[in-house]
Amino acid sequence: VINFCVIGAGRMGQRHGANIARHNAARLVYVADPVQERCEAVARSLGARAITDPGIAIEDPAIDAVVIASPTRSHVDLIVAAARSGKAVLCEKPIDLDMQRVERCERELKGCSTAIMIGFHRRFDATHMALKQAVKDGEVGAIERISITSRDPQPPPANYLAESGGQFHDQMIHDFDMALWLAEAEGSVDVYAMGGNLIEPYIKEHGDTDTACVLMQFASGALCQIDCSRRCVYGYDQRVEVFGSEGMVQSANVTQTAVERFTHRAAMARDPLKQNFLQRYEASYALELDAFIGAVSNKQYPDPGFQSGKRALMLADAARASLRSGSRLRVEFDGNRAYP
Amino acid sequence: VINFCVIGAGRMGQRHGANIARHNAARLVYVADPVQERCEAVARSLGARAITDPGIAIEDPAIDAVVIASPTRSHVDLIVAAARSGKAVLCEKPIDLDMQRVERCERELKGCSTAIMIGFHRRFDATHMALKQAVKDGEVGAIERISITSRDPQPPPANYLAESGGQFHDQMIHDFDMALWLAEAEGSVDVYAMGGNLIEPYIKEHGDTDTACVLMQFASGALCQIDCSRRCVYGYDQRVEVFGSEGMVQSANVTQTAVERFTHRAAMARDPLKQNFLQRYEASYALELDAFIGAVSNKQYPDPGFQSGKRALMLADAARASLRSGSRLRVEFDGNRAYP
Amino acid sequence: VINFCVIGAGRMGQRHGANIARHNAARLVYVADPVQERCEAVARSLGARAITDPGIAIEDPAIDAVVIASPTRSHVDLIVAAARSGKAVLCEKPIDLDMQRVERCERELKGCSTAIMIGFHRRFDATHMALKQAVKDGEVGAIERISITSRDPQPPPANYLAESGGQFHDQMIHDFDMALWLAEAEGSVDVYAMGGNLIEPYIKEHGDTDTACVLMQFASGALCQIDCSRRCVYGYDQRVEVFGSEGMVQSANVTQTAVERFTHRAAMARDPLKQNFLQRYEASYALELDAFIGAVSNKQYPDPGFQSGKRALMLADAARASLRSGSRLRVEFDGNRAYP
Amino acid sequence: VINFCVIGAGRMGQRHGANIARHNAARLVYVADPVQERCEAVARSLGARAITDPGIAIEDPAIDAVVIASPTRSHVDLIVAAARSGKAVLCEKPIDLDMQRVERCERELKGCSTAIMIGFHRRFDATHMALKQAVKDGEVGAIERISITSRDPQPPPANYLAESGGQFHDQMIHDFDMALWLAEAEGSVDVYAMGGNLIEPYIKEHGDTDTACVLMQFASGALCQIDCSRRCVYGYDQRVEVFGSEGMVQSANVTQTAVERFTHRAAMARDPLKQNFLQRYEASYALELDAFIGAVSNKQYPDPGFQSGKRALMLADAARASLRSGSRLRVEFDGNRAYP
Repeated sequence: VINFCVIGAGRMGQRHGANIARHNAARLVYVADPVQERCEAVARSLGARAITDPGIAIEDPAIDAVVIASPTRSHVDLIVAAARSGKAVLCEKPIDLDMQRVERCERELKGCSTAIMIGFHRRFDATHMALKQAVKDGEVGAIERISITSRDPQPPPANYLAESGGQFHDQMIHDFDMALWLAEAEGSVDVYAMGGNLIEPYIKEHGDTDTACVLMQFASGALCQIDCSRRCVYGYDQRVEVFGSEGMVQSANVTQTAVERFTHRAAMARDPLKQNFLQRYEASYALELDAFIGAVSNKQYPDPGFQSGKRALMLADAARASLRSGSRLRVEFDGNRAYP
Repeated sequence: VINFCVIGAGRMGQRHGANIARHNAARLVYVADPVQERCEAVARSLGARAITDPGIAIEDPAIDAVVIASPTRSHVDLIVAAARSGKAVLCEKPIDLDMQRVERCERELKGCSTAIMIGFHRRFDATHMALKQAVKDGEVGAIERISITSRDPQPPPANYLAESGGQFHDQMIHDFDMALWLAEAEGSVDVYAMGGNLIEPYIKEHGDTDTACVLMQFASGALCQIDCSRRCVYGYDQRVEVFGSEGMVQSANVTQTAVERFTHRAAMARDPLKQNFLQRYEASYALELDAFIGAVSNKQYPDPGFQSGKRALMLADAARASLRSGSRLRVEFDGNRAYP
Repeated sequence: VINFCVIGAGRMGQRHGANIARHNAARLVYVADPVQERCEAVARSLGARAITDPGIAIEDPAIDAVVIASPTRSHVDLIVAAARSGKAVLCEKPIDLDMQRVERCERELKGCSTAIMIGFHRRFDATHMALKQAVKDGEVGAIERISITSRDPQPPPANYLAESGGQFHDQMIHDFDMALWLAEAEGSVDVYAMGGNLIEPYIKEHGDTDTACVLMQFASGALCQIDCSRRCVYGYDQRVEVFGSEGMVQSANVTQTAVERFTHRAAMARDPLKQNFLQRYEASYALELDAFIGAVSNKQYPDPGFQSGKRALMLADAARASLRSGSRLRVEFDGNRAYP
Repeated sequence: VINFCVIGAGRMGQRHGANIARHNAARLVYVADPVQERCEAVARSLGARAITDPGIAIEDPAIDAVVIASPTRSHVDLIVAAARSGKAVLCEKPIDLDMQRVERCERELKGCSTAIMIGFHRRFDATHMALKQAVKDGEVGAIERISITSRDPQPPPANYLAESGGQFHDQMIHDFDMALWLAEAEGSVDVYAMGGNLIEPYIKEHGDTDTACVLMQFASGALCQIDCSRRCVYGYDQRVEVFGSEGMVQSANVTQTAVERFTHRAAMARDPLKQNFLQRYEASYALELDAFIGAVSNKQYPDPGFQSGKRALMLADAARASLRSGSRLRVEFDGNRAYP
């Protein structure tokens, strides 16, 4: 049994906490959050101990692993502290919004052999996993093109936007990871971005886009296109397509039910898509935890690991810079470490 | 080149005539219809000669084949006359509504080697043909169950109903042929029917059903279910499913376009189904003519032939009798002739 | 909080027990099973007390509700004992295989006001519920036809068959309930059955069918067709279709993932269907428990209740008798009690 | 009746000729082609007169309209000659591969009031038309994004490539027109292109790409993405998606039949997509001719007209230049003329 501390008692912390509490091979020992009331309520409902200082858990030798679901700007320090204390880490994305801080984190982790996993939960969706497996099995042959569509049902509120890092770093970062995971890209990636403001004026006021598209070319010559929107009236639109020399595999959308309606106006009409990421990816968080626990138990480095988090951030940085400059940028992945 | 006479200048005669006129290996010589004005108009538009007496064509040695698209009660006499005169015959279904007359026709055809094809046009639909091919190729293994759904967009007008022979003989006869074609059934078939009046009172006044279901069991033990309705607001519903030991193949519905709409109420909503049999099976009539011309040219007996027409009628008769008696009836196909 | 005893520690008892243990408004107090070792293992894993005699729980005033997941032949006595002791009852289907025993149970329940729910879990599937809601909302207008397809992936083992009551009572009983639920049928139902042995010889040796079809007509004139098979190589085939004057609604099949493959042989190929009822209806059991707890809490009579269990059995009895006699049978539902 | 001359007796000329010959409101008078033998064979089969010099038809006052299906480099001179002679013109795309020649053509057409239509046949596909209608009807609200996928089954042969103008001018030009038609774009368009060689070495040797993607932004801020490939093993992949504030409409792919297969490996597998543009767009050419004849008869300017041809070429030129320079280019549409 692996003993956990969950840092952060917000929406994601609660979800991870509940999954840990229910897991046969895990035990939730601590919930850490500076807001004492919320922390105690969450800890109580999950049968854990509430602490306002995560340092207590990080220094407790009985703790094997921490889940970091606190605000982004606290991630780097918590990762370093936990890793140096020998704890395995499952950290929500992004590692940080500032590449310099991510690189400092990387330097400070040198020599630590502890497992660090970044929470790209989409990799644990059954349909995306089947897509990945098909690609690995050679069903599409050599990859020629990846297309990813990612549309949120509603834009985030203004106060969230301010801290989000923007559409590329908050929303599209999942799609960058998806692309790198599917393509197993090494070497260089060319990145070009276009974006605009078509939805809500307050998004523009924050200097952010609400509609964006990134076009990438991998060293193999394969192309990748990512399409993001902050609003989608028919639900949470999540599609991935991999096209190659031998065919195509798609990860199609998931509807709320399998009902089909036939009227004088329409045939085969289904219910709208799943409404949001919690509904669409509910099972993914549990499978993500399984994978993390499996890696920790078997002393394997988890995937997606720290480098996955860093590389997705590199692409997000390049996309933002391309949007501003109007020109293509090249990102180089160094070969120090096999992906992931 | 095969020289044709089309008998009957109504909707079906016009359709066959147009297909013949456009066919490279055929020439439309005569259009025959007792209503002179209509006959002349149709013949003129197709570049053919109008005759009010089909006997002229039947006795004309230059004529190779006749298409019989006249009223049902005239079919038997025209088939016999044309066949005895050595013409190949493509006759619209049904051969006749009266089994005694069909059997007389069969006796009078004894010794005639001429090709007789019955117009079960659905056999020439690309999707149904692909279904049949899949079954023949063993894709579903041994057939365990056939399901056929056949729903017309609107009920026929009252004056048509009076001459139609009823729902089993007018509408479901196509499905009986479909079932026999797919199952390649020999020996006996058990038939049980249920039906009712749920749509239009005038249908009940004619002593007919508007909603009916037939359940059959072939000698192999395989089951077949046919579902017919005289009204369907979402278009012309035509589905066939063959299920067996190795899987299932379906002939799915065909929508008017491949547009898919996504709104806050629905996902993947398509346009309604094709509106009626002329729209759904437009290409089938041309392929049916190809098959007929091919059989005539190669001196092969066409399929569906006379026996197909007779067997479908046997099932329709049994269904009507079962509906009236409330009990199951057994139909025996004699082994005189390989199906078709 | 409602205190539960689960009677029967087999597959279904474990599932109900796990759902109760995790439910906020429920507490699992006892697990009862005569096989002491299994009983203790299950009770321990769920934090409950193991008892070999369910009478202990039935007589314990702290217990509010029992779930009966023991062998079928024990259901009637346990229902009566629990109900007389004032416990709410959630009993797995069927109530019993013998209608005389069901009617005795009904008589002995006279005067008991306790809630009795029969475990027709399909009613709590999200897609079937959306179908039911659409029908209730009048989307299809007046019902003209219901079609239900129900195909299990593999036939049950021979030792199970002996106690199952046969295909109509074990498998199709769920479809009978589905039909009655959707049609809200009152009055009489005409039932006709056909069936055969196409799959495994040992099923025939048990005097049972493996492939069956039932055709029914409700008092309204609407038709219903049920298609069952004991083997289906592409997974667990579960489809329901309701057709009426204003359109059609289907409860379509559910595939294992939403991946779609495109090759030179096929387009849009999806993964096979969910593999079995536990996979397909996993969420239904939790929602069924919610509904039961909701009814108990609100002192409402649950639906599906005792009469639902009895009526489904009446149809199964009629189907079996129709198969043997080859003739149609009429079932009369008395009007004593509003459905459910 | 409108009297036609078809110039060019190759594949496209034959198709247009056959559609004209069969059209009630048209008469095919001449087929013109310098290769006398082919010209005569085609003319004979269509009941027309063969001429090797198209000038004969252009000067014949009995001729109302010409269809230009000759090699691209002859288009401009033929358009000018025919227009000056008062003939309506239906010209296959592109007008020319050289923008200077197109602009010269435009100048020389000044003052001619004759109808000139460019053969962007996809606009007459039933599904694309339904998509356009939905957009016009406001179903998706304000357009935020257009996505077009266009993948040919096989790359063209090397000798064709040399004259094709390259992937942007030969293949993607249809998608540029589709995008402009759907967006009704005015003002400026920003264009950025990426491409590569992943399929056949001989394509690279011709200095062309085989895999390309163009990203565009209209003056409204809406984005458009076009994805082209010269090879697609599952058939002719033709998809269009328009996403906006109120929803999404897709023009989905069209399979060869509506058969669906269910096996232990797959569910709902359909036949591959239509195999090529002739199969996919067979009906579009006839509807294109209808639209041309309708415009000529009603003295309306046809759509897509000359400006549509010019604008699509402007985008193709910009895409090629962007691919070479690696930077974004802006195309300005002058406001002289309403689109089309």
